[in-house]
Order: sequence, then structure tokens, then C-alpha cells
Amino acid sequence: MEKIVRQSMLYDFYGELLTEHQKSIYEEVIFNDLSYSEVATINNISRQGVYDMIKRCDKILEDYEAKLKLVDKFLKAKEQIKLIKEAACQLKDMNSDERLNIKIKEIEEYSDSILEEF
Amino acid sequence: MEKIVRQSMLYDFYGELLTEHQKSIYEEVIFNDLSYSEVATINNISRQGVYDMIKRCDKILEDYEAKLKLVDKFLKAKEQIKLIKEAACQLKDMNSDERLNIKIKEIEEYSDSILEEF
Repeated sequence: MEKIVRQSMLYDFYGELLTEHQKSIYEEVIFNDLSYSEVATINNISRQGVYDMIKRCDKILEDYEAKLKLVDKFLKAKEQIKLIKEAACQLKDMNSDERLNIKIKEIEEYSDSILEEF
Repeated sequence: MEKIVRQSMLYDFYGELLTEHQKSIYEEVIFNDLSYSEVATINNISRQGVYDMIKRCDKILEDYEAKLKLVDKFLKAKEQIKLIKEAACQLKDMNSDERLNIKIKEIEEYSDSILEEF
């Protein structure tokens, strides 16, 4: 997984456990794609300060994941939901009964709403 | 939700963030169903000490849930999976094509493996 994708996921799960200040700096770098120098200027801290803060936040988030493994579990669940959607899609292709297709569509919608929840 | 069910769920999600000592006392009371007095005797602490420890752990776990809401999200996802399984069950009742039933069974299995994951 690309580093920034992992950082985003860890932040989505555990970001609320960071301080407001850490969250603000982390979001500027990871989500708003600002450079360390830009974030340093905006927050009136050194570039090294921003670098250290991001490194520290990465470690805090990775430590939570090492203990709770919720991102890992979510990714595995997501994989299963993908398989449910694939099976539902194949069912539609194999079948022309409209009554069945309504039920199959329900399964697809429930699957999507699980993914949206997280 | 019954208090002990909620305590179990919160512990399943966030228990690893407690200390080893907290985990041990909490498990004895919540999972092994020992009384405060029994746990006090085993651990050579006062009954009040056990009571305070459980109250403190409950608060720590509830505080994590207040911030991360992962138990809440999981319960909502579980509700959707239940609906997927119900729809799959109805599909089987509505249909006698064995090729379709194989796919429907796959959907049920993927749904179960999501529930087992958490």
C-alpha cells in the first residue's frame, strides 16, 4: 500500500486520539498535500518541527494499529464485501427473473452502505 | 444493550489499550464472571480496589469509543450483513436453479467471514 494511503487510513481510524495541534499539522501535510515548508510557515514553526511532528504522529497511529489491528480487520472485511458484490453481479448475469434481481440489488446496496459506514 | 454485552464489545475493540494488570482484573470480572470479592482475594487487593478498577476501565474504554466510534460503526455494519444474509436466504427460497444457489451460498459464506473477522 502506498505510504500516503496507509497514513490516511490510520488517521481515519485513530486520528481522534491525536491532539488538536497534531491533527491540524497532520491534515495539512497528508490530506491538503502542503509541503513541510508551507506548513512550517503557516504555523510559525521550523520545517524540522513539522517533520518531527509527522514522524511522531505516524508512530502514534502505527502503535494504535499494532495493538488494535482495526485497519487490518477492516481491509479484510472490505475484501469480503468486494467478493459479495462480485457474486451479486454474477448472479444478475446468470438470471433474468426480475423478482430475484430486486433482491440481488438489495444485497449490493447493503454492501455499499457497509463500505460507506467506515 | 445489556451492560455486560457492551463491556465485552468495548473490551474486544479497545482492550489492548489497557495495561496488563487492568486487562487481567477486567477479564476476571467481565469474562470469567468472578465476583469482586473473589477477584479481590485472588489478587490480594481490596474489594473496593476491584470495584474502582472496573469503573476506571469502563471509563477508559467508553472514552475510546466516544472518540473513535468503532463499536458503533461495527454494530451498524453487522446490521447490514444481517440484511444481506436475509436477502440471500430469500433468494434461495425464490429460486431452484442450482447454479444460482452456489453463488448465493458464496454470499452467505463471505458474510459470515466478515462477522468472524471482528
